[in-house]
Parts: sequence; structure tokens; C-alpha cells
Amino acid sequence: MSRKPRALLFDVFGTVVDWRRSIAREVDRMAAERGWSIDGNDFAISWRKLYQPAMERIRAGNRGFVKLDVLHRENLDQVLSDLGVDGLSEAEKQDLNLAWHRLAPWPDSVGGLNRMKSRHILATCSNGNIALMVNMAKNAGLPWDVILGAEVTQAYKPMQECYLGSATALGLDPGECCMVAAHNDDLAAAKSFGLMTAYVERPLEFKDDGGPYPATGDWNYVAADFIDLAAQLDA
Amino acid sequence: MSRKPRALLFDVFGTVVDWRRSIAREVDRMAAERGWSIDGNDFAISWRKLYQPAMERIRAGNRGFVKLDVLHRENLDQVLSDLGVDGLSEAEKQDLNLAWHRLAPWPDSVGGLNRMKSRHILATCSNGNIALMVNMAKNAGLPWDVILGAEVTQAYKPMQECYLGSATALGLDPGECCMVAAHNDDLAAAKSFGLMTAYVERPLEFKDDGGPYPATGDWNYVAADFIDLAAQLDA
Repeated sequence: MSRKPRALLFDVFGTVVDWRRSIAREVDRMAAERGWSIDGNDFAISWRKLYQPAMERIRAGNRGFVKLDVLHRENLDQVLSDLGVDGLSEAEKQDLNLAWHRLAPWPDSVGGLNRMKSRHILATCSNGNIALMVNMAKNAGLPWDVILGAEVTQAYKPMQECYLGSATALGLDPGECCMVAAHNDDLAAAKSFGLMTAYVERPLEFKDDGGPYPATGDWNYVAADFIDLAAQLDA
Repeated sequence: MSRKPRALLFDVFGTVVDWRRSIAREVDRMAAERGWSIDGNDFAISWRKLYQPAMERIRAGNRGFVKLDVLHRENLDQVLSDLGVDGLSEAEKQDLNLAWHRLAPWPDSVGGLNRMKSRHILATCSNGNIALMVNMAKNAGLPWDVILGAEVTQAYKPMQECYLGSATALGLDPGECCMVAAHNDDLAAAKSFGLMTAYVERPLEFKDDGGPYPATGDWNYVAADFIDLAAQLDA
């Protein structure tokens, strides 16, 4: 069996928390209160679709680093405009933008993380900013040891600096760190920079009937959920 | 009574952990094993005395930012040389340098932090680097929500950027953060930049019969220990 990683670096959106249905619930609630004919799930998908292009401008060097909260807000304004939603006050838009700070964990996330915490350093390695990660963790009970990733390294995944800078901050070699993600592309990048890799299936991330999304790479661990991953790491 | 802070920013060395007696214990153990005539307490004090001058070169702009682990190691080599200690291997020196990652908490630290954690964000705002803070927390059971301070802001206290950069990372105004420290100078700096302040007495920090060190400023909270501070914050 593989050597055991000292630190687990977690992708968060989709891997630890259910962004799609969390955003959808908040939007559906607003829509019901205000009589909008808007589907929360479509809104969530539309908002998330603007995520990669917004980061890509920064990764490509066409814009200086700004926190994901800023990109989420710009993208929210775009989605509201695209869907013809009007009438939200500035305070309401700011609060809706913070829906990303309130995302709910998958049912196994908290229990699995608590099991992994005793033997491993649990670090976020997300594109989400520090305040987003901290507020989400307080709200959802996610027991991180340290918030790393994009804001600390000033680089968005899949840029090398985000993975290697997170390992360096822990004083660890890349090979002592294991990237945990529900996304093959995130793991492929991590592996190419020398990290270990763990794939976790999150069949409901994108669609209610979407899964399973198969692991397509030669990852060190492939797990059905965080409880399964904890068991494999302890084995 | 004061408004309640959203986040508590903790000084760590001396405030949360007992650096002097922790370092002294490790050195006394080594001295006994090797027959050195060296007092662990003197060694700890000598090592710590080089701490501020080493950071001052960086604060003054005469050296780029390097992590505290690097400064601790340079200072260790100096202390070993000053005391005429010879014969440690490179691996042994590296391990001794990591004594700062293994500092023991004051008896009330873990219990007090766990009480404060339910209603406040608990952040380190220390000059210690991320790996040092994470390893110390894993070892001592310190329930931080987030590691901030010098490495994240690339500035050593009492530089403004260390305090304000930590608040900004949390998405908070300085006035929503309360600096917690056993040192009046740390709190004076924090207050001058708009943070709330909490003084905690740590009578044993520098000498076995040294305390109490009185609060000399007009701080928002003055507490005998972390249990007392938790009670005052909850009141």
C-alpha cells in the first residue's frame, strides 16, 4: 500500500461541500418570497459557469490577483443581469454573494474529516478565499487545521504555485501531501507537481441524477466518500 | 460593556504556550544525556533574546522576509556557539530547532480556547510561521480556525500590515477583531491600528518567580487566564 501522507490538501467546492444544492436552496427561497420565476438549480449552475473564466483572466496574467469573493460578486451581477433579475438592494446582493460562505457539507464530510484529523494535517487547498473558508468551516463544522490555497499562495489552481506553495507553507515536500478532490483535472495537476492524490466520488455535484463520475487517473486512493477515504488512510 | 469581537487574534509565544519552560525541558534533557553543564532555562532565555533583533533587520527593510523557522535556526547556531556547545549533528540541530513546534500550552489554554471557539473566530496572529503554528496546534490540541499573522501577511509584528492584513484576510474591520496577548507592546500596536485588545496575565513567562506583569494600557479586557477571558467575552 502507499506510504501515508502527512497532510491532506482538500479541494472544497464540490469535494467537501455541495455548492449546487446549497446555492439553489437560497435562490429558490428568495424566488418564492419575491415571486420570481427562476429555478435555483439553473441559477447555481449559471453562477458557477462563470467561475473558471473569471479565474482564467488572472491565471493568464491579464488581471492581478483578487479574492474569489470579488469574482463571485462580479459573476453574480452578470447572472442577475443575464436572467433579468432586478430589484435586489446592494445589501441583498452582498448577502446573496455570501451564500458561498454558507455552503452545506456532504453528509459524510464532517465525520470523515474528524476521523482523518487525528493522524493527518487537514488543510484546505481551494480557490476560495480565507474568509470564505473560515466562515464556511464555522457554519458547517469543518475541522481544518489550516487554511491554505489560492489566497495564501496568491495563485489559483491549477497553477503550480497554489499546490507547491501550500506544501511549502506546511514545511513539507509535495510527496508528503495528498490532494483530495472530486475532480480528475485538479488531481492531474497535483500529481504532475509531485503530490499524492485521492479521488472522492461526488455523484450529485452537478446533477441530481448525474453520477457516478469515474476516476480517470492513476490516483493513490479512490474513495466513495470521506468515511471510506478515512478507512483507507488508516488501513 | 464592550461590543463583542467577531474574531480573536492571538499572540502565541508566551500568551498561549510556555516557550521558556518548554525549551528549557528539551535542553535540560539533552544536557543530561550528553553531560553538558548547561542550564536549560538560561539556554531558552538566550535563544529568545535573539528573536527581536533578528526580526528587526527584516522590519527595517535590511533583509527580505524569511520564516521564523529560519531565524530560529540562525539564532540557535549563535547560541550554541556562544555557549561553546559542540558536537550536535545537523539532524540534531534541525530537531532542536523544532522544539518551537512542540511548545506546551499553559494549563488553561486549550480549555479556554475551546470555550471561546463557539462564539468567535480563533485566529493566530503570531510571528511564528505557518508550519510552526500548525505543528504546535496538532501537538498541543489548540483549536485554531485559521493561521494568520507574519507568514500570511509577510510582515512581522508590530508592523501594521501584520495586524491589518490578518483582519482583512477575515473580511473584517479592525474593530471587529480583538488582539489577545500577554504583552502590552503587542496590544499597544494593535490598538493603534484600530483593533480591540485583551490582556492576559502570564506571570511565569519569563521567570519562575516573575509575575505578575501588570496591564499598563487601557485594554478592552484584562484577564487572569483564558478561562477568565472566555467568561468575560460570554458575559
